[in-house]
Amino acid sequence: MYELTELLQLIDVPYDGPSITVSALNTLSDAHSYELSFLQNKKYIDQLRSTTAGAVFVTEDMKENVPSHTIAIVVEDPYMALAYASKLFAPALLDESAPEAVVGEGSVIAEGANLAKGSVVGKNCTIMPGAYIGRGASVGDNSIIHSNVSLYHECVVGSDCIIHANSVIGSDGFGFATSKQGEHTKLYQNGNVVIEDDVELGAGVTIDRAVFGSTRIKKGVRMDNLIHIGHNCEIGEYSVLVAQSGVAGSTKLGRNVVVGGQSAFAGHLEVAPFTNFAARSGITKSITESGKTFGGFPLMEQKQWLKLQVKIARLLKS
Amino acid sequence: MYELTELLQLIDVPYDGPSITVSALNTLSDAHSYELSFLQNKKYIDQLRSTTAGAVFVTEDMKENVPSHTIAIVVEDPYMALAYASKLFAPALLDESAPEAVVGEGSVIAEGANLAKGSVVGKNCTIMPGAYIGRGASVGDNSIIHSNVSLYHECVVGSDCIIHANSVIGSDGFGFATSKQGEHTKLYQNGNVVIEDDVELGAGVTIDRAVFGSTRIKKGVRMDNLIHIGHNCEIGEYSVLVAQSGVAGSTKLGRNVVVGGQSAFAGHLEVAPFTNFAARSGITKSITESGKTFGGFPLMEQKQWLKLQVKIARLLKS
Amino acid sequence: MYELTELLQLIDVPYDGPSITVSALNTLSDAHSYELSFLQNKKYIDQLRSTTAGAVFVTEDMKENVPSHTIAIVVEDPYMALAYASKLFAPALLDESAPEAVVGEGSVIAEGANLAKGSVVGKNCTIMPGAYIGRGASVGDNSIIHSNVSLYHECVVGSDCIIHANSVIGSDGFGFATSKQGEHTKLYQNGNVVIEDDVELGAGVTIDRAVFGSTRIKKGVRMDNLIHIGHNCEIGEYSVLVAQSGVAGSTKLGRNVVVGGQSAFAGHLEVAPFTNFAARSGITKSITESGKTFGGFPLMEQKQWLKLQVKIARLLKS
Repeated sequence: MYELTELLQLIDVPYDGPSITVSALNTLSDAHSYELSFLQNKKYIDQLRSTTAGAVFVTEDMKENVPSHTIAIVVEDPYMALAYASKLFAPALLDESAPEAVVGEGSVIAEGANLAKGSVVGKNCTIMPGAYIGRGASVGDNSIIHSNVSLYHECVVGSDCIIHANSVIGSDGFGFATSKQGEHTKLYQNGNVVIEDDVELGAGVTIDRAVFGSTRIKKGVRMDNLIHIGHNCEIGEYSVLVAQSGVAGSTKLGRNVVVGGQSAFAGHLEVAPFTNFAARSGITKSITESGKTFGGFPLMEQKQWLKLQVKIARLLKS
Repeated sequence: MYELTELLQLIDVPYDGPSITVSALNTLSDAHSYELSFLQNKKYIDQLRSTTAGAVFVTEDMKENVPSHTIAIVVEDPYMALAYASKLFAPALLDESAPEAVVGEGSVIAEGANLAKGSVVGKNCTIMPGAYIGRGASVGDNSIIHSNVSLYHECVVGSDCIIHANSVIGSDGFGFATSKQGEHTKLYQNGNVVIEDDVELGAGVTIDRAVFGSTRIKKGVRMDNLIHIGHNCEIGEYSVLVAQSGVAGSTKLGRNVVVGGQSAFAGHLEVAPFTNFAARSGITKSITESGKTFGGFPLMEQKQWLKLQVKIARLLKS
Repeated sequence: MYELTELLQLIDVPYDGPSITVSALNTLSDAHSYELSFLQNKKYIDQLRSTTAGAVFVTEDMKENVPSHTIAIVVEDPYMALAYASKLFAPALLDESAPEAVVGEGSVIAEGANLAKGSVVGKNCTIMPGAYIGRGASVGDNSIIHSNVSLYHECVVGSDCIIHANSVIGSDGFGFATSKQGEHTKLYQNGNVVIEDDVELGAGVTIDRAVFGSTRIKKGVRMDNLIHIGHNCEIGEYSVLVAQSGVAGSTKLGRNVVVGGQSAFAGHLEVAPFTNFAARSGITKSITESGKTFGGFPLMEQKQWLKLQVKIARLLKS
């Protein structure tokens, strides 16, 4: 928690306006009166006008759109200012003053498993050798965390889950601000990952923690091996992802979506429940109607894609 | 091992017929008289008619095709019944009553390596820090298991092998039965992985254990990094797979098959020996003739694919 | 270090010419007078003619192109001879006689982290549980090595770096000589990986060590999750690679190259600075002009690819 004036001093932003106590960073649409937000892309100007944030980084020309209950902090590059500020709110990886890990009745913590101080494991779990449960992370009841899994700090795995070997839950999302000179400044990812109950993740899966809030894998999801899930994604109940697929940041899949192997989703999409994707689908637009089957890249209905391939093959004879 | 009547009680299947002792689950074509099998897809009806299984889960309408030496257990959803039963046969991850790991002469077990009770390491091996050798798993002579490799229980690595860091051998294959409500029930993967002699696997490779029997990586195979091999696959002698390729379940490659990077195989295919695939090949049909080179998705002979790309590019001028 | 005559005896190459002391293997263009090289592919004959290597493996018909200051060792298969010789120069994985790991002031080595003898960690670093720092490997100041990362022997991570969980730095590049019978002999990868300052790598990334010299990730690079970088690659300053991309061996990207997700580069390419690639680009040729944006496979300018997709879609109506 920082006084706004102190925070701005720490990141070298000149400021002599009023102060508030800032407890976190957040998006324009989710920020509370004790949070600091930003507007980088003018297409979100409506979110600026209706924000309930305590303060916002904005460029000079956007200043007039900041609501009266919100403090405007004028900077040249709001996203860069956010990146600098994000470091101040980064949660600690380790905390030697935290209590010893709490382990529920009936759980087996194999020799060689690493439970950080301040971690919690429920009842009847098995934590295999080399698995790491971070500070403030928790595992529900009856879950199995296989060898060499990395569960980062403050991330949550539900009950009745199986996380296969060498998967990573809670690594930093891919975020940075880039200067005009092409240099990158890290946007610290201060959210977490929440994996709900009855989820099974294959081996070598990587799920990034949210920049704010949570990346969420909902109840009953099944993932195969080597899948990438970006920050702030939401994977709907009972959805199934086949090996080597990737979902870019902030994309939300509805329930029972089935994703064929090596498919990829662009960021910031919404996919209707019960949608099916053939292997290697490349999804760059939201899908609003449920129950259809798509394929190809660019994406089209799978039966269209099959027809199109026949037409394309005919070119060989032309 | 279970009495059939006991087993069916445990999974809530009503039954009042004769009993046998069931020692495992298996496919219709491989099951012995002491094994339980199932028919889900009617296209395998011939396998049902000729099965030597002791008992089978079948739907009412398939009952008459069960041979007289096999007990028919009528259920609504045979695959779901199998999934429930599979949990009963799941091998233990750990066994505190097993003997201490056996390590052959001349082997170096680095500090921080984790050898489960009941594991075996041959002569002149090196097991690096963070590597995990599971219960009942074994490593042959002169092999190197790099740091943070996970070798699951009951899996086998041969002699003269090199397994690079953070690879996973023996994670569960991707199998589950889905109810009409869209909920998934795990099909426990009770087989293993066998890696024969003189195999080198890159970093971050994941090889799933078989549902029944073995996933098999044959002698002399070379795999690059981040490759996915599904359950029950067989990769032929001296085959070469380049980075980020994936092979779906039950597909069998002959010897000296060469697979370009980011290629993908659908499941249940057979590929003739000495077949070559260009990078990003998408293979959805079996290949019966040896020695050809393919590419593209849909797959075609590579020289056709190259020609086709020229034709496609001409469309830009149309 | 070996006397040439001794080395050739060890790998069963008949030879009765003069000897030199050989301290390493190297390419024709980089080899010094105390190094042994090879010519396999006749298209590099000019490199043979101008080499400063002390000795070279060549076929009989190339012998006359060997400069007078270089010893010609005539063999049937120079690459196979090199592979056999490479084993003799393979650096040790572990060295019990090396000094204890050196750790700089202010660094936190979490319980369960594995620092090999002969490793070095700078100041104010955090090394998380299960991370492995190999013999002769080093980490600069202020860097974070997350849980279950594998940093192989003799590899270098700079200052102000973040390596996310389960990434692998320094696994062997994918190299082997194949006999006429289709059997593979490993080409030991005796180089290393150098990661310069201010680099962040995502989770599950794999970066292979060089066969000779270094694979190099330059200052300020950002990589997302599950990316593969082959041996001897060079990734230019501030370049950005999105998830599940792959770069094959010896390819060099200039500075501030941006690579969309699931893209792939063939080997031995050079890419001009400030080039952008859309997701799933497939790059098989070098790019010499800076500042353009490409996409597709085969690769073309992204705006062309977008136009082409419109033309292709029209085929459906033909």
